[in-house]
Amino acid sequence: MRNVRLLLAFDGTGFHGWQVQPGARTVQGVISDAITRLTGERVLPNGSGRTDAGAHARGLVANFMTSSDIPAAQVLKALNGILPPDVRVLAVREVPKAFHARKDAISKIYRYQVFKGSVLPPHLAREHYHYPFPLELDRVRAGCALLIGEHDFAGFAAKSGRVRSGGELRARHETRRHLFRSEVKAAGRRLIFTFEGDGFLHHMVRNIVGTVLEVGRGRISLERVPELLVRRDRTLAGFTAPANGLILVRVRYGRLQKRSAAKQCVSEPRP
Amino acid sequence: MRNVRLLLAFDGTGFHGWQVQPGARTVQGVISDAITRLTGERVLPNGSGRTDAGAHARGLVANFMTSSDIPAAQVLKALNGILPPDVRVLAVREVPKAFHARKDAISKIYRYQVFKGSVLPPHLAREHYHYPFPLELDRVRAGCALLIGEHDFAGFAAKSGRVRSGGELRARHETRRHLFRSEVKAAGRRLIFTFEGDGFLHHMVRNIVGTVLEVGRGRISLERVPELLVRRDRTLAGFTAPANGLILVRVRYGRLQKRSAAKQCVSEPRP
Repeated sequence: MRNVRLLLAFDGTGFHGWQVQPGARTVQGVISDAITRLTGERVLPNGSGRTDAGAHARGLVANFMTSSDIPAAQVLKALNGILPPDVRVLAVREVPKAFHARKDAISKIYRYQVFKGSVLPPHLAREHYHYPFPLELDRVRAGCALLIGEHDFAGFAAKSGRVRSGGELRARHETRRHLFRSEVKAAGRRLIFTFEGDGFLHHMVRNIVGTVLEVGRGRISLERVPELLVRRDRTLAGFTAPANGLILVRVRYGRLQKRSAAKQCVSEPRP
Repeated sequence: MRNVRLLLAFDGTGFHGWQVQPGARTVQGVISDAITRLTGERVLPNGSGRTDAGAHARGLVANFMTSSDIPAAQVLKALNGILPPDVRVLAVREVPKAFHARKDAISKIYRYQVFKGSVLPPHLAREHYHYPFPLELDRVRAGCALLIGEHDFAGFAAKSGRVRSGGELRARHETRRHLFRSEVKAAGRRLIFTFEGDGFLHHMVRNIVGTVLEVGRGRISLERVPELLVRRDRTLAGFTAPANGLILVRVRYGRLQKRSAAKQCVSEPRP
């Protein structure tokens, strides 16, 4: 058996996210079908993480085990020949059997794109959230910076879902994440947010963006941001920014790409 | 009556070009319907020029006469409320009655986008032509530069159509155009071509791009480019690059925006 690693990019507009769901078009499902067509084997690839319906990826990592001996370069060409144009395999390589795209990830980099102008140009519509309101960029920037570090991000997690399972202590443990990078840059009438962390809770990036945009607009005080990290109360946060502005840019792994070694050889990822 | 000028942007993927055609979704048709819904008047707006099916625009100019007295700012909001998201009105203003979007244009700027990498990322697929072949950029650049100036571009015009009407002398006159700017820039694995001219023949930009790409690839000699301007033989040119890489970026007008004055007060447009 070989372990094959895929680097994937997709336009999320036409997908209900990564994870296979009955009756829905998902990236994992489309990739799985393409692998089956190529190898004759029925496999469900591991993804580096779930993505929201409508969110995009430039560098999602997946892996799958196969007994096929098709060389990596041919797997790339063949899969791209089978796949629809809204999902592409950017790179393929064989990796040690222990490699797992989700479990070995040491950090993920997300981008969130906002368009501030009054009219959203059609060529930006798929990958930008339209927020045509007066903003103080310095406040947005300060809001982002206050989130850097290891914190309990429960206040920025989706209300429903996994976080609530288990007791208070377990939940608190489960919602701690380390955010290495949290920043915003203006590029003309666009705002480009970048977040890098060792993991992200469900809707965490979208809730952070919705909150710091409200801070920039003066609807939420800057003091509310650290308060959210302490009080863990989702109702104090801003709105959930829509999925179409969200892009998974990159997933980082340890150099050896073995589950056990990954955490030893890499300290804090550099931005 | 008022003369209203519109600045338009559209994603051409879902349109059969600008010009109204029976049974086809066109930008002119969609705009015309939106104006009718807003004003109750049946008008066909003048466009700065036809665009090919599948080609895009960031700044097409149109104008129409109306007896409605809705202020320009409200026309903008109302039309964008009616129009589908793949076409947007970026600006609206009232102009002198003599202004005509096509007849008064003194130059047009087109961009053509190429992606050279082996796999075309989905987010670039709508507006980039995928040309994953080894290229000598200096040859592409030289091919572009040889076209600058006033020439007979019949060799770069679509085989069929208007150009053939009339006798040889008339045809020769009709196919002379002044190209002010013709250049290519590399941006990572993208090539961005820019062309500015006082007018463009049908498929002219796409035929130029197809030809200079072939020059860059070594399939057509650099000497062929000036030869095409002299021999006017379309069969010597390269292929017609696909419409989806083509973007009408901007249309320039004389300062006074009156048909008679436009040509007097403006000499050669600056890039």
